[in-house]
Order: sequence, then C-alpha cells, then structure tokens
Amino acid sequence: MKAVLAEEEQKRHYPPSYLVNGVMEANPERPERIDMLLQGAKDAGCDIVHPKNFGAELILAAHSERYLKFLERAHERWSRIKGASEAVTPNIHPIHRRGYPDSVVAQAGWHMIDASAPISSDTWESAQWSAWTAAHAAELVLGGENAAYALCRPPGHHAGAETAGGFCYLNNSAIAACALRKAHDRVAILDVDLHHGNGTQDIFYERSDVLTVSIHADPVRFYPFFWGYADETGANEGEGCNLNLPLPRGSNDAAFMEALSTALTKIQSFKPDALVIALGLDAYEGDPIAGLAVTTGGFSRIGEAIGAALNLPTVIVQEGGYPCDELGGNLSSFLGGYESRR
Amino acid sequence: MKAVLAEEEQKRHYPPSYLVNGVMEANPERPERIDMLLQGAKDAGCDIVHPKNFGAELILAAHSERYLKFLERAHERWSRIKGASEAVTPNIHPIHRRGYPDSVVAQAGWHMIDASAPISSDTWESAQWSAWTAAHAAELVLGGENAAYALCRPPGHHAGAETAGGFCYLNNSAIAACALRKAHDRVAILDVDLHHGNGTQDIFYERSDVLTVSIHADPVRFYPFFWGYADETGANEGEGCNLNLPLPRGSNDAAFMEALSTALTKIQSFKPDALVIALGLDAYEGDPIAGLAVTTGGFSRIGEAIGAALNLPTVIVQEGGYPCDELGGNLSSFLGGYESRR
Repeated sequence: MKAVLAEEEQKRHYPPSYLVNGVMEANPERPERIDMLLQGAKDAGCDIVHPKNFGAELILAAHSERYLKFLERAHERWSRIKGASEAVTPNIHPIHRRGYPDSVVAQAGWHMIDASAPISSDTWESAQWSAWTAAHAAELVLGGENAAYALCRPPGHHAGAETAGGFCYLNNSAIAACALRKAHDRVAILDVDLHHGNGTQDIFYERSDVLTVSIHADPVRFYPFFWGYADETGANEGEGCNLNLPLPRGSNDAAFMEALSTALTKIQSFKPDALVIALGLDAYEGDPIAGLAVTTGGFSRIGEAIGAALNLPTVIVQEGGYPCDELGGNLSSFLGGYESRR
Repeated sequence: MKAVLAEEEQKRHYPPSYLVNGVMEANPERPERIDMLLQGAKDAGCDIVHPKNFGAELILAAHSERYLKFLERAHERWSRIKGASEAVTPNIHPIHRRGYPDSVVAQAGWHMIDASAPISSDTWESAQWSAWTAAHAAELVLGGENAAYALCRPPGHHAGAETAGGFCYLNNSAIAACALRKAHDRVAILDVDLHHGNGTQDIFYERSDVLTVSIHADPVRFYPFFWGYADETGANEGEGCNLNLPLPRGSNDAAFMEALSTALTKIQSFKPDALVIALGLDAYEGDPIAGLAVTTGGFSRIGEAIGAALNLPTVIVQEGGYPCDELGGNLSSFLGGYESRR
C-alpha cells in the first residue's frame, strides 16, 4: 500500500500546550507522532509518497471560505495583541450569536469550539499539507489503487465546516470523502478513533450521499461531550445517514468488535461505492488518553473485519493516537490485518 | 442614602486569575474593591446596612434553576477532577448544542460564556450575598427610600439567565429590577458601565415591562464583542425596549454626556415607575481596563443628569470599576452629584 505524507511540512505545527480543566497542559499531539506512525507504515510495507499541493478547491468542499481565511490569518493578527500568548486560544464563546464578528479575539471564539486546537505560527501550513495528504491518497485510489494510507497530522475529525477543536483544524477524512465523491456517488466514512468524529458528522449531517459512522467512548463524561450520542441520526436529506456507536469507558476488544459488526452492517446496507476509514489509534489500552482498552492484536482484527466486509476503494486517514511505545505497532497491526483480507 | 453591603461574605470569592488572550492574567475583580467602594460610599455620607438572606426566590426571577444548581455545586464537582485547576474554568464551548449535558466540564462550557468568570470555592456564597445586597436595596426603596446603593461584588450585568461571564455570576441589577417589579409596573435599567450589559439585555430582551439601556465602549473590538450593538432593540413583546449606545474607544465626558442625554430621553418616554442604575465606574480615564475617558468630575455630572431627569424610586447597583486610586472617589463623586439633584 502507498502511504502519503509531507513529513517536514506536517511536522512544523506545534502549539506546546492547551487549556484543559483550567490548567495549561502539554499537548500530546506532538510532531514525533509522525516518526512513530511513519515507522509503523514502513513496517507494514508501505511505500512513502509526498503529496501534491492541491490548493484550496478540495478543502473548500468541506469548509467555509471565511473559516479558511481565519485559519490563514489568525496567528499574524493575534500576534499584534499586546501580551497575548504565542498560539491563538479562544476565551470568549458566543453561545447566543449575532452576526460574524470583526475582531480576531471574537473570531477565535466563533471558530474554535474548545481550547484544544490552538493556532500556532505554522498551523495553517501543516494543516493544509495534512489535508493535501488526504486528498493525494484519495487521488491514488481514484487512479486505481485498492487502498491508500494518508498519514495526516494534525488530525481532522473534530473540525467542522467552520470550526476547529480537539487538535483538529481541517477535516482530512471529510476532504478525502469529498475527493472520492468526484468519481463515486456514495461514500461511507467509518471512524474508529477513541473520540466521536463530531466535525465529520457536522459536515455531512444533512447529506444522503455520505454516510458517517463513528465508534467511540461514550461522550456523556468524555470529549467531545456534546455530540456522539446514539440519537444523532442525521437531519433532513441526511436522516438515517449518521450512526453513532458509543461504548462505555474501558471497553475492550470484544465490545469494540461487536460495535464494529453493527457499523459494518450499516455501511453494507448503505451500498457505498467508496470508503474512508478515519483511523484513530487512541482506543489503544496503553494510549495516554486512556478511554478504551483495545489491544495491539485488536487493531489487527479491526483491520481484518473491515477489509473482509467492505471490498471498496478505500482511503485510510490517520486521526488520533498519542505517543506511546506501541503507536507505530498499532498502525502496522491495523494495516497488516486490513491488507490480509483485501 | 443607605448603602447595603455584606462585607465579609462578599469578600470571600476570589479566583486569582483568568484566561485572556491565551494567558492566565491576574484578576482585577479583587476583594479590596469593596474597601475602596465602601470608603467612597462613606465619603458620600451613606449609612451602611447589612442585607438579609433572601433565599432563592428573587434570584430565580432572573435565573434558571439548573443554572443556580450548577453554580452551587460546580466547584465541589470540579475539585474531584484529577489535576484540575482550583477554579472552574470552561474549555469546551457548545456552539451547536444538543440537550443539557451531565458532566461538570460540559456544564461549565454550557453556562460560562467566556473564561473570565471562574468559579472558586467561595463564589457561590459571595454571589448570593451580592444578589441579596441588591434585593435588600430594592426592599429599602419599596419601603419608601428615594434611593439606595447596593455595593455588589461580584458584579452582575454580564450574567444572563443561565450564563456566567465577565466576572459576573448572578445579575444583581436584574434581580433588583425584578424585586421592584413586585410593586411597580414598569422598571427601567440604565447601565453606565464601560462594558455592554449583555446579561441584563439577555434576561429582559423579550419583555416590555423592563426597559434596558446601556452606554458602553463599542463592542466591535471590545468585550463582550458579540452584543451591545445599536441594532439590538429587543424581540417579540420586548421590541423597542432595549437601547444600546456604543461609544468609540477613548470617548470623553462630553461624548458620554451626549449618549446619556439620549438614554434619559428614551427612559422618560418609557414612563417607568422605578429605576435601576447599573453603576460601573470603569469608564473612568484612569481605570486599568482603559476603555473610555470619563473623569472623576464627569461621574458627578452623570449623577446630576440622572437625578435631575428621573425622579423615581431608584436602586443604584455597583457593577464594574477596578482598583485604582480614584475608585472610591469616583463613587462618591457619582453619588454626590446624584443626590444634589434629587
């Protein structure tokens, strides 16, 4: 399988800390995630490919223009505020909102749904290359590859049509799905990250051409808190085209596989022409976020089950999964399992 | 004039810092504001009165029950989160919200519209006494006093029906207005604080029995950013019962007096039976927040103009105004001017 990655460009982004529970904590979404994941992709036998610069068009399929303008200019505007932090961090939150505001402080509140997606000097560049990595993997699949892996960093599935959140700025999985839609009528996105893919759900919630399915830790006391419940099934034309499968905290391989089976049945009944796998590896039992308890062997079985059930042109997009000894091993375990059944 | 104050109880609340522009800054809403304002009230000849405990009823006239329950219990629940800060600080912001969440982290995002109203161990107690101070001043006026001054701390005018923000938790001015409504059909609230009284506006926006008028620095690049514009005139039954008079940053006495004249004409035409003055003193030229440039003499003229135009049962509720040499002097200047024309 080919693995797409703009190593240097995607490494630049690095806001060192973010606000959580009132404390500035070290950001686990660190550049060295790329080294760990790259090793895992190589161990799985992937050939590494550098993406093209696709410009704005494909990104605009998933995001609003004013949001991209904000992401592009926010850091420079923010740096003119006397005494401000290096990274753009929201501190005002327009719950009852009137029209789009002018000031960068207010725009930060408008576009950033939480404090865990600070915008640093290189964020816009890295986020774009991460999006182009996903777009390039989709192009490889459109060109005839069975599957391609996009080593995206920063991740994307918490980014909505015009919102950043949870270490995410541009929704790489959504961008891959939009790229696949150029040649395929129906696309499914299967999100196996520890956290609900609320941004992806947001982007496609009223659409019937893209099915979104997410397996994740129950949001009742877990990020992203406000979305990811089983009763969110889509709206208007998209009614029935969103499936959330929340799992109790600490769920193990068996519980995950049971939810996956439900997810795969739903996807099969949707009859998609192509698939995006939003591959978070933070459901791992040893992940620092400690939400679920999937094993390294479990990721192999997850890959096998998907590969066996869905013989479709497939883009595998890297989402979460944080530094730990097994991060690369979990990726090669998943990819190995997946390829063994395609 | 009588000045109401629960000195000890209102001093306890003190979250030492809050997040602004990505940096934890020292909180200027410090307990010693009470000493400075108390001196100002004494210099103006006020007799100091301790408020009664009015319980929840009057507070519930302005706020939802679940919000009060959150304020009461948030700090204790928050303190059970491993590694969390002392004071409850929101870090997630439900822009597209589903139903009311269960977790204290999510409830913090739901109820706190910005990062500048952290909830510390004594916040609930101090906020209640601050609200009862306003209620007690209203009771004095209902009992026949021409006017009474409520030395409220924490302040209140940024607190909405179920939201804290901008150093505010319970909306003391709104609570005073609701207390006055028990005996009077029509009440006006005149807010002369440097910042727009967005919480007060929120609480009465669809009501025709309480007129809300606010003079403040233009929110386009100033807190609270999302509200305080001239085109916010009320909704439904309250259409026409909200007037915002934003002033350019740095406006002086003359500009303030011109806006005040417009405000007083509007209030006169509303024909209220009673008045609440939301008295922020942070429009002062030497206030650390540095938004407008009203002088100490200017506060006297503001007081005179209100006293001369509106001969009504009046509760004066302390809002903002931050530690500087003239804080107490600005209060006695206002109260002296006001009393000279009643």
